[in-house]
Amino acid sequence: MKKILVGAGLACVALLGLVVNAQQTPAGDGPRYTNGTSLIRPADYREWIFLSSGLDMTYPQPGAAAQAQLPPRHSFTNVFVNPSSYRGFMQTGKWPNGTIFVLEARRADGVSRYFPNNQTGQFQTTLGGIEANVKDSRFPDGWAFFGFSGDAASAEPLAGEALARGQCVECHTKETAVERTFVQFYPTLLDVARQKGTLKPGF
Amino acid sequence: MKKILVGAGLACVALLGLVVNAQQTPAGDGPRYTNGTSLIRPADYREWIFLSSGLDMTYPQPGAAAQAQLPPRHSFTNVFVNPSSYRGFMQTGKWPNGTIFVLEARRADGVSRYFPNNQTGQFQTTLGGIEANVKDSRFPDGWAFFGFSGDAASAEPLAGEALARGQCVECHTKETAVERTFVQFYPTLLDVARQKGTLKPGF
Repeated sequence: MKKILVGAGLACVALLGLVVNAQQTPAGDGPRYTNGTSLIRPADYREWIFLSSGLDMTYPQPGAAAQAQLPPRHSFTNVFVNPSSYRGFMQTGKWPNGTIFVLEARRADGVSRYFPNNQTGQFQTTLGGIEANVKDSRFPDGWAFFGFSGDAASAEPLAGEALARGQCVECHTKETAVERTFVQFYPTLLDVARQKGTLKPGF
Repeated sequence: MKKILVGAGLACVALLGLVVNAQQTPAGDGPRYTNGTSLIRPADYREWIFLSSGLDMTYPQPGAAAQAQLPPRHSFTNVFVNPSSYRGFMQTGKWPNGTIFVLEARRADGVSRYFPNNQTGQFQTTLGGIEANVKDSRFPDGWAFFGFSGDAASAEPLAGEALARGQCVECHTKETAVERTFVQFYPTLLDVARQKGTLKPGF
């Protein structure tokens, strides 16, 4: 947040190894770790690039069908990606190494609270939790999934039984439009992938 | 997108009246006009700060109640704000002059297309249209509303009968949590406004 104000005239500025990107987020917005592979919770993901939002885009859960008779408790999911990787995708239709997606869940509330004439609209309220999907060559197959417990400062990569139970890899491999990402749900990226020819067959 | 790379050592750079904000989007991300008050369509609003998304947050329409028996055609609305004004709000809880909000409507589609086990989830698809709400002292009461027709390159401020019919000012004055903006629907900003004491009474 350093601001340098320079008035009219010449200014001689000492810049030691500094990269100044006007209108660009500097490199270094990718995943950061502690202990090698424990992902540090991204503090500023809400200022990253928004890809899309969905309502009730829940993962299939055991017993969900049996609960279908209960009153719905709606939830939104917002997806953000780090800006430098977004720019890479816009140029190539592929995700560069060091891409980090944050999936943010937010509870829904009825807009009728403010507008009684609208009995169906839903808006976003409190944070439910965040997860991350990271492309990084430090992981065995180049990608890793993370679930942040509450407001934990870091998260271990899902592995072993937890990974298998969540079916993360299987679903993010078989059902995704580009690499391990659901680009079919990100309308502005879907157009780019189509143009760049990076969609998987069937999309 | 101008990039200035400076290696180790001293560099003498001529900066004439230039503001360089490291890690900040430079000023100049606010509203741009042609013919004085005709708002130029923001080309890059999808790279601005995302505030929130809602489902079926439609404005009250005449006859809407009569149509309530029709099958629902869901739509999402995403809200973005220019980055420098976002940063101003995070510091003060108020919107600086030169703030521009873009409201983007997107059609919804059922996630069952990809996941038959999920019969209720909704995701975003094609663009429906964009509108803008601008805080700028060039307008008589400091704010103006714009509706972009299709992919029009610019839009005139709503005025006269169109403004009255749309009830923009009335609703954005009486029902909004901060100034003329629905901060009650932007959960991360709502917390900031509460801390800064800028919420209207009743919120």
